[in-house]
Amino acid sequence: MFVVIAYDVNTETAEGRRRLRKVAKICTDYGQRVQASVFECCADAATFAVVRDKLLGVVDLEKDSLRFYKMGRGYEKRIEHHGARPGYEAEGFLSF
Amino acid sequence: MFVVIAYDVNTETAEGRRRLRKVAKICTDYGQRVQASVFECCADAATFAVVRDKLLGVVDLEKDSLRFYKMGRGYEKRIEHHGARPGYEAEGFLSF
Repeated sequence: MFVVIAYDVNTETAEGRRRLRKVAKICTDYGQRVQASVFECCADAATFAVVRDKLLGVVDLEKDSLRFYKMGRGYEKRIEHHGARPGYEAEGFLSF
Repeated sequence: MFVVIAYDVNTETAEGRRRLRKVAKICTDYGQRVQASVFECCADAATFAVVRDKLLGVVDLEKDSLRFYKMGRGYEKRIEHHGARPGYEAEGFLSF
């Protein structure tokens, strides 16, 4: 499945900034960064469940927001990108 | 159609910060903010084309990034949210 992961982490505290680094690391391990806090991840259901659980184990649900958009079949035709590519291109598109 | 709009606007300059305000205003006019730079918009194809053209008329394609994720049918079951709701809830879900 192809999932868009978008997150907002409250970074008002040092602890929040730590959460942000951890969230970004997990997303980088499993997906491709396309914007500062938006990743795209191609994974089977079991791997997606692992990613979600890892992220839920890091974020503070009172302060942070995690959104998962499962794009479904034929997603390629339903994604549009305009403008600059993120400078932090992972080494390639990760899919599991 | 249900579209997720995600944007990254380079705000290193005053002009960039002006672009960001304009992008956020257009998205607020047509959609629901769900994260700092992620909106959800329920619109027909013609209205979506208007939104896209307005946004493309504001961003700097060299510096900024716009991504549109058209979720397709049955999107409700394919969106997961965990954590804090944005404090900037628009007055309700806008759909055209």
